[in-house]
Amino acid sequence: MANTTWTRNHVLSLSDFTPDEYNTVLQTAASFSEVLSRRTKKVPTLQGQVVANLFFESSTRTRSSFELAAKRLSADTLNFAAATSSLTKGETILDTAKTYLAMGTDMMVIRHKESGVPSAIAQEMDRLGVKVGVLNAGDGQHEHPSQGLLDLFTICTLLNPQEPRLELLAGKKIAIVGDILHSRVARSNIWSLTASGAEVHLAAPPTLLPKLFADYGIGTGKLFLHWQIEPALQNADFVMTLRLQKERMTSHLLPSLREYHQLFGITRDRLQLCQPNVKVLHPGPVNRGVEISSDLMDDPDFSLISQQVTSGVAVRMALLYLMGSGKAGNSL
Amino acid sequence: MANTTWTRNHVLSLSDFTPDEYNTVLQTAASFSEVLSRRTKKVPTLQGQVVANLFFESSTRTRSSFELAAKRLSADTLNFAAATSSLTKGETILDTAKTYLAMGTDMMVIRHKESGVPSAIAQEMDRLGVKVGVLNAGDGQHEHPSQGLLDLFTICTLLNPQEPRLELLAGKKIAIVGDILHSRVARSNIWSLTASGAEVHLAAPPTLLPKLFADYGIGTGKLFLHWQIEPALQNADFVMTLRLQKERMTSHLLPSLREYHQLFGITRDRLQLCQPNVKVLHPGPVNRGVEISSDLMDDPDFSLISQQVTSGVAVRMALLYLMGSGKAGNSL
Amino acid sequence: MANTTWTRNHVLSLSDFTPDEYNTVLQTAASFSEVLSRRTKKVPTLQGQVVANLFFESSTRTRSSFELAAKRLSADTLNFAAATSSLTKGETILDTAKTYLAMGTDMMVIRHKESGVPSAIAQEMDRLGVKVGVLNAGDGQHEHPSQGLLDLFTICTLLNPQEPRLELLAGKKIAIVGDILHSRVARSNIWSLTASGAEVHLAAPPTLLPKLFADYGIGTGKLFLHWQIEPALQNADFVMTLRLQKERMTSHLLPSLREYHQLFGITRDRLQLCQPNVKVLHPGPVNRGVEISSDLMDDPDFSLISQQVTSGVAVRMALLYLMGSGKAGNSL
Repeated sequence: MANTTWTRNHVLSLSDFTPDEYNTVLQTAASFSEVLSRRTKKVPTLQGQVVANLFFESSTRTRSSFELAAKRLSADTLNFAAATSSLTKGETILDTAKTYLAMGTDMMVIRHKESGVPSAIAQEMDRLGVKVGVLNAGDGQHEHPSQGLLDLFTICTLLNPQEPRLELLAGKKIAIVGDILHSRVARSNIWSLTASGAEVHLAAPPTLLPKLFADYGIGTGKLFLHWQIEPALQNADFVMTLRLQKERMTSHLLPSLREYHQLFGITRDRLQLCQPNVKVLHPGPVNRGVEISSDLMDDPDFSLISQQVTSGVAVRMALLYLMGSGKAGNSL
Repeated sequence: MANTTWTRNHVLSLSDFTPDEYNTVLQTAASFSEVLSRRTKKVPTLQGQVVANLFFESSTRTRSSFELAAKRLSADTLNFAAATSSLTKGETILDTAKTYLAMGTDMMVIRHKESGVPSAIAQEMDRLGVKVGVLNAGDGQHEHPSQGLLDLFTICTLLNPQEPRLELLAGKKIAIVGDILHSRVARSNIWSLTASGAEVHLAAPPTLLPKLFADYGIGTGKLFLHWQIEPALQNADFVMTLRLQKERMTSHLLPSLREYHQLFGITRDRLQLCQPNVKVLHPGPVNRGVEISSDLMDDPDFSLISQQVTSGVAVRMALLYLMGSGKAGNSL
Repeated sequence: MANTTWTRNHVLSLSDFTPDEYNTVLQTAASFSEVLSRRTKKVPTLQGQVVANLFFESSTRTRSSFELAAKRLSADTLNFAAATSSLTKGETILDTAKTYLAMGTDMMVIRHKESGVPSAIAQEMDRLGVKVGVLNAGDGQHEHPSQGLLDLFTICTLLNPQEPRLELLAGKKIAIVGDILHSRVARSNIWSLTASGAEVHLAAPPTLLPKLFADYGIGTGKLFLHWQIEPALQNADFVMTLRLQKERMTSHLLPSLREYHQLFGITRDRLQLCQPNVKVLHPGPVNRGVEISSDLMDDPDFSLISQQVTSGVAVRMALLYLMGSGKAGNSL
């Protein structure tokens, strides 16, 4: 398993990922997908190392995916959930992280409702001169890089199962539809997809897609904003829908879920606008009948939603492996 | 370890268990009891497999028992608790189960306050054509099959420690006393005990034992209903008490816990009616002084309550082993 | 690893610890510190054994430390949190403990907000004649012995990294500052430090340091009480600060956090009173700027707070090893 190019201690954002780094993750994840198809889906790579899942914001799905990835690499895992934590006792987040460091944690997977928390912890680890890797598992409205990478892996694996590479996306048209304003998933995807050379089309009601998003595409010429869904779907190869938080309505950004579905929901009819073999992605959990019609979600000819979840474990194994092996000289 | 007769992918109910299946579980659990008496209580049977405990209704006791059973088979475990889950985010239960499937879960242990949820998930797994076993860990007022099997194992092991078999119960009189109407434990026990050829006597106040329960015994001639406790206890070999939910009083099904204890509580005096070597079971957690007098619960001459907990780990190891080995050709 | 002197089944309190026992823990923890510096920080000592963390009072920090200690000894762990437990269903605490016993638990780590609960459970285990070790992880305002031992280990290791021994503290002056009245940490530390032959000086406002604390030092001649901080700090070699519960103010024991910091907070200025190479300890979590000034907490020349957390894992491994090896004849 080649990882000669990997020098990154932390994975906090995709904004500065290089094509080499994307491809190293894709190839490493492909190797782990092979491991996961074996009868015994476990490798001893990270035996004796500790991965702490520090979830200051609750998430069953992402936490389980990281926990399983760590266990399949034979790491020990510690789970921290904010609800039962010292945070309620007045400890700062940096102090919590330093406590886990002092216990002997090798890698920290961090989710927080505030943007920037994983970066702040990573900076503190670097300042202290310790080799502890920090993985951003979602921070506020900033980024969710492992989700961006698993979406990329899902698409590239579909295009070339043996050799998924970033370059496979060049010239493809990808629509991202939904609550882009509040979505850390969308932000991470915009970085990876524009880096691949794909055309990225964002579509949302104006309240959920401010003009400033055009700035993400500066220099690439590959990012387009739409306040209707049709131009985004036109001839698209892939459609990424985003989860709609129901809280958005109470804050008057949306009139109703029903109206949202009528205007921006992904339906079989709307997919007629796309390429014939178009595929739909969603980071989950899905509000059936809101972001996507229920029958479409379950149709394996169109939906990649299950593959995304499966890719998640392989990609997270790859990230933990790359971050952990840099430190300890492990081999697969 | 013989399991030639086992073809069942899921364990959802005891209503259609065959005598061969009961005996396969009993014999396999007996083998695991032997493992649990070793110094190192672990076997590598399910190494690299993943058991997900999806507890949509909280339960420390049953969840710990399944978790320990899985760990002693060397499986990796994922714990899901409803309180911190995507359910609060609007995801359907089937979608949650499919997410765990896509992550690579091999077996799902499911508890839910609604009857039928584990069956619905099992049907969905079958529809998808995947070999994922579903184990009902208690659904509403429907069934709790692993509890029924561990009660059976506890009794049969007492009668013949080396070779616990269903047939040992033929002709025995077993009383089930308490809140039968709301008890999934009672329903599972009625299936297994009537299948064994035992005489099963249900006793409860009329509000907690509707006449329709007689239907469970149709064709067996072995099920009897009583609205007083005495005829049920008369010459009984085993007395199973059921947990009384305190909520039953607020819904006016019971006048008071004290009156319930006076009329249906198991006491040393009442046990005089039974066979001299009568034993008492309770699925736990116990309300001391309500379903059973406190001193009786702690008397090893009468109480099998601790043995039931111990049996629980062995029986759950047996179920996970049988369900997992059918898939992967594992051997003990 | 010599542990010829260890005969203790339970660790509930330091009040009756002998110098031999202190030194056995210190030496065993020193051996495990060496294990923790290896690349693979895991030993097979407790493989196949089960450590149940029964936290009736929530604590992320202590629970994670015990969990990691158990995992590094290759034990399986079960976590119990009161919030989701049968306690809400009316089960007694002893019955909960007996349930975990019946499942096959080898050691129980117990935290409870009431003093005496771990002792009550230990007595029950002894009464039942079972070899299950009980470890007090903090009970009410009684004791927190593993914290006392890790503090001792942290100090002794500083004085002699190769051979930490109790006797190294003879003649040292140690100040304990803060909410001594409510602190189980202070009580455990008073036992170990007076046993070592150190001079122990307690300092707190009168509402948080009643005169009866002098009784702890009866016969030792080494315990001193102060209602101002200065005499306690004068020439001190070590300063132990205690966490201040914010609830203390609402119960009118303190005027304000700010005033507390002005009178009893540890600051760079105040440390001028101490020995030049004085070190500061805190059991965490810290209220920065209350018990200790923020810059001091982060200054590795003065603060031992990180080392305390690291020591915690080694000391808890030592305790689990000593309690477990007595039973099963394990060797490291």
